[in-house]
Parts: sequence; C-alpha cells; structure tokens
Amino acid sequence: MTSANNARSGRRPGNSGTREAILHAARERFAEVGFDRASIRSIATAAGVDPALVHHYFGTKAELLAAALQLPIDPRIVLAQLAAVPVEHLGETLVRTVVGVWDSPLGVQAIAGFRAVLGSGDPALARTFMLDVVLKDIRPRVDSPPGTGAKRAVLAASQLAGILVARKIVQLEPIASMPLEELVALVGPTLQRYFTGDLPPT
Amino acid sequence: MTSANNARSGRRPGNSGTREAILHAARERFAEVGFDRASIRSIATAAGVDPALVHHYFGTKAELLAAALQLPIDPRIVLAQLAAVPVEHLGETLVRTVVGVWDSPLGVQAIAGFRAVLGSGDPALARTFMLDVVLKDIRPRVDSPPGTGAKRAVLAASQLAGILVARKIVQLEPIASMPLEELVALVGPTLQRYFTGDLPPT
Repeated sequence: MTSANNARSGRRPGNSGTREAILHAARERFAEVGFDRASIRSIATAAGVDPALVHHYFGTKAELLAAALQLPIDPRIVLAQLAAVPVEHLGETLVRTVVGVWDSPLGVQAIAGFRAVLGSGDPALARTFMLDVVLKDIRPRVDSPPGTGAKRAVLAASQLAGILVARKIVQLEPIASMPLEELVALVGPTLQRYFTGDLPPT
Repeated sequence: MTSANNARSGRRPGNSGTREAILHAARERFAEVGFDRASIRSIATAAGVDPALVHHYFGTKAELLAAALQLPIDPRIVLAQLAAVPVEHLGETLVRTVVGVWDSPLGVQAIAGFRAVLGSGDPALARTFMLDVVLKDIRPRVDSPPGTGAKRAVLAASQLAGILVARKIVQLEPIASMPLEELVALVGPTLQRYFTGDLPPT
C-alpha cells in the first residue's frame, strides 16, 4: 500500500505525459490480453519508454493495474487477508473485508474507479481485474466439486458488485446506511452458499 | 409497451428541443422529490410547456420516467407480471423476468441506461426509479415480520443489480453466457431467502 501510494502521489513525476502514456498503454494491454499475459515490457514498448521507468513510476504489475483502474490501494494486499480464513467463513469475511474498504476513506476513490469502469465501456479491463486478480486465489479454494470454482467465485462477485451499487452508488436505504456487521450477517450467507453450498445440476 | 414506443420513436416530434427540455425537467424533478411527488404539471412548468404536451410526447408519468432513464419499455408492464406470482416463487420469477428482459433485444437499451446512470453521478434518479417504481409493489408483499419489507426488497435488488453488472456489463464468465434457466436456479434461491427467509436480528 505504501509503495503504491508513493508511486502515485509522493513520487509523481514532473513529466505527467509519460506517466499518462504508460497508464494508457497499460489499460490497452490489460484489456487486450489480460493481466497475466500483459508484460511490463510490452506495456513499456507500447508507451515508448524503458521498462525500468514503468517500475519506477508504478512499482509492481499489480500496482500498475491498480493505478490503471484508479484504485487507491493494491487489491492483493486486501485479498491476502483472506488466505488464512477457513473456506467455511469466506462468505462473511469477504463481505466484511471488501465492504469495509468501500466504507473507509480509501473507498471513495475505489468507488469512483468502479463507476468510471461501468460507465466507460471498457469491460475488458474490469474483467481481467476481477478474474485475474480478485477471484484468482478464491477460485481454486471453492472448486468443489471440481469444475464449479469459477461459477461459485463469479456468483459471489456478482452479489458484492450489487452491494457496491446499492450501498455506494445508488444509495438505496436501508442498505446505504446499514451498520457493516448487519450487512455482513445478511449478505455473508449468500456468498457462503455460492462458495460451498449445493449448486443445482447443470 | 406499444404506447411508450410510439411516444418515443413513432411520434417523435419535430421540435426535439422541447422534448429534451421536458426530459431535462423530468430528470431534475424526479431526482429532487421522487417519482410519487413529481407531478406532470410541475415538470411541464419547469420545462416551460403545457402539461398536455408532456402527455402528448411521453404518455403516462411512468412512461416519462422510463424515457428519462432511456428505458425501452415501461418497467411497470414487466413488473405487473409479478403480481399474480405467489410470494414463495417470487425469487426465481423475478430473476427469470428481469434477466429475461436484459437478455432480450430490448435489454440493450436498458443496460445502456443503467450504465449511464451509474457513470453519470445522478444516483437520485436511479434511486427513485428503484424505490418508487421497481420495488414499490414487492415491498409490502415481503413485509413479514412487519418492518422488514424495505430491507428484503433492496437486498434482492442488490443481487439483481450485481447480475446485471456481471452478466451484461463486465461480462464475467461463466455468468455472461450461462443459460437463463441455470442462472434462475442459482440466483433465485438468493432472492427467495432475502424475500421470505429468516433475517438475523438487528
């Protein structure tokens, strides 16, 4: 988090054109080939700069994606907290952790980024962010029976996205000003069912 | 549906400035005071036209709201189908009905309108649409124990909004191309729990 913040505010370069060119190239590459296959080198080439400059301005590739999406923090730092949580508590913990970020001062910028993505017509960037970063570590943990992990993870993500819309964007009461722990108690079981409940046969 | 389509395409007036002025006034009034309290007369006054002209161009107030939100159909026609559905089947029926509209040719414009609302920073208009039109008839039907109806309806709306984001906007697989009936089987129980399940004490 500190590194990403430094890269994006403390060490902001004088040449903002270079920084914007890198972000523009990053958005295009991530959208075209996904997070995993977009190399820092290919992004640097597209931006016409040295790869070292990309690292200097933005840090890691995940931090670059966070910057491209205008996220205030590296989402993997948040998600790393989930690694130690038993799978049978993943539902409530995910709601508490993710909605907790949205409710925090950092959340304002994350929500602005989400709105920009929804409004901008650039779904590929949001898609690689969700599939290759946010859901990547969860998918194998909920892949029981084998082959259901992707479905389970995306269903959970859909409910979280809907909470973002209802609580933070459209601000529908009583969800908008509901205490976080009440929301966890109401919505956690939905995510838990998606993660570990019986799914209808397909 | 036919009437709304006529009003907005077949009978499109030559004076598009007047039409836009009415839509602009309608968006402002609906956002300010909500659907129920925004009168056609007050909208006409704000637009500087005769109320009869508003009816001539847009039909009913619900059709005017649909036009203000750039919806292709009067949402109350869709929602009216739910009135005859027993409350214990409301979850799956709502998913089938609403996602069915999004999946239809009419859905393209509805999704564009939703994206515009999310991106535009005009949450009040979307809020009155959700609370005063979409959820209005459902709320009293799921108000058991008394006082929980608003919470239940908004929770269900959040899951539907999340499906819209995942299936139609960000297009996350496997939700994006999942057959409608599989989605109904997966997500219907979530809405049903929100509508009629036990809620944690607050």
